Amino acid sequence: MVPLKIGIVGLGLIGGSIGMGLRAAGHSVVGYDRSIAEAETALKRGCVQELADLKEVLATDAVFVSVPPDAISEVLDLAESNRNPHTVVTDCASVKGPVVAWAKGKNAPWFIGGHPMAGHEKSGSQYASAWLFRNAPWILCPTESSSKETRTTVSSLISDLGALPTIVEANDHDQHVAVLSHLPHAVAAVLVQMGAELSKSQLSGGSWKDFTRVGGVDPELWTQIMIGNREALAAAIRQTTTHLEELASYVEAGDAKTLKKYLTASKQAKSKLDKTKPI
Amino acid sequence: MVPLKIGIVGLGLIGGSIGMGLRAAGHSVVGYDRSIAEAETALKRGCVQELADLKEVLATDAVFVSVPPDAISEVLDLAESNRNPHTVVTDCASVKGPVVAWAKGKNAPWFIGGHPMAGHEKSGSQYASAWLFRNAPWILCPTESSSKETRTTVSSLISDLGALPTIVEANDHDQHVAVLSHLPHAVAAVLVQMGAELSKSQLSGGSWKDFTRVGGVDPELWTQIMIGNREALAAAIRQTTTHLEELASYVEAGDAKTLKKYLTASKQAKSKLDKTKPI
Repeated sequence: MVPLKIGIVGLGLIGGSIGMGLRAAGHSVVGYDRSIAEAETALKRGCVQELADLKEVLATDAVFVSVPPDAISEVLDLAESNRNPHTVVTDCASVKGPVVAWAKGKNAPWFIGGHPMAGHEKSGSQYASAWLFRNAPWILCPTESSSKETRTTVSSLISDLGALPTIVEANDHDQHVAVLSHLPHAVAAVLVQMGAELSKSQLSGGSWKDFTRVGGVDPELWTQIMIGNREALAAAIRQTTTHLEELASYVEAGDAKTLKKYLTASKQAKSKLDKTKPI
Repeated sequence: MVPLKIGIVGLGLIGGSIGMGLRAAGHSVVGYDRSIAEAETALKRGCVQELADLKEVLATDAVFVSVPPDAISEVLDLAESNRNPHTVVTDCASVKGPVVAWAKGKNAPWFIGGHPMAGHEKSGSQYASAWLFRNAPWILCPTESSSKETRTTVSSLISDLGALPTIVEANDHDQHVAVLSHLPHAVAAVLVQMGAELSKSQLSGGSWKDFTRVGGVDPELWTQIMIGNREALAAAIRQTTTHLEELASYVEAGDAKTLKKYLTASKQAKSKLDKTKPI
């Protein structure tokens, strides 16, 4: 491994964890966050060796942009004008269509879109961990213009974090995460509201705990994510409600035979999912 | 603690775990399962000291009935005619209305309904653990006829398992578990089917793993549970779909303001749930 100078823009949970992990792997890391409090927490927790101006951070060897979705194109525009000739740049947004469209428009060989499939129900670098990405898929969405060096450098850094780099086309990514990530977050947001109405919500077991873990995530961030993937997420939600209405009708009618058939199909689906090869 | 002779009818995950836990606490345990294979697994794993005829198991000091919902009333009828005068009996069904109705009809001081709020996505005593119930709520639904001795003995045994005994009225219990347990299982059953249709389901992160853990539970058992609680579960599912349709409409319209308001209410609800005092 060649130690690089890494720049991180946005020192929240994701940016802070990238910094910690890459420092642990032997790279040097500088960071920037527009919130001074967040930046200082990240420095104090060792997510970065030092804080720096945004322009300086954008002129390192490799830049991770881990800001909320709505702020990404602004940071990428600044990266374009402030990077060094050899600087490669990636982002961490959980919706890839808009970012990749930006990159295509710019014909930017120095950029590759990315999305780590790992997170936490808490926000901020105070919860950052060098282990957050270990064994988690980290999706990369290169455009035709992404250079080989950009792909190789970013992929290598992701491997240094213990994550599993995997190439997926941007729209395909967005369709998949609508079901695999955004939908669970939407359902969790619903379930916590229903649970809070109960007089004895503490009578819950493991499945409830699992289902509501991500029920209170950052509203501003997740509004941007959900609306950023609006079509695919709305379709995933509607597919869910159709399925649920079907299940409810079997339950309500006491139709044990059909319900059991449905649950048997679920058991087979779960078994298929469990057997799916990791990336 | 006075060591008792415990009888367990139904040596699956729950019965097996009760046996292991009560043995670890110093009680002696005999068990019965109508499946010879299941019974032998339980014996081999140390869930019970020995296997015995059903009648013998029903004549111990305290009997846990941990059979599928549809088989409970049959076992309780046998308990009534085979128990010793001092034998107390409880069950573990996750729907309490029918069982408590049975107990009321029988005017049985020796019976109290119960429901441990703990489980596992795998079935069978091969997955049993003495720790399964530790710090989990264990709901008890006494009828007016449940004797003080029955309540005290069963409650004490549950505490020996490390669980938290808590009294809840049967219908109230069923309304609560419809949302807190049966609904997550229904949603998980839907999500695994949707996930299995994806070409790259392995691109998932933590929230998907959480949401689908219980997606492949035993179809026969869960058909009985869901239909046993049909009205409350169907209502909980319909409440969920109404909420989800609302969310989908905000997402689809790109209505960031209203969506953020919804997610802020979710964050508050989650915070309220997290602050709820344990039992």
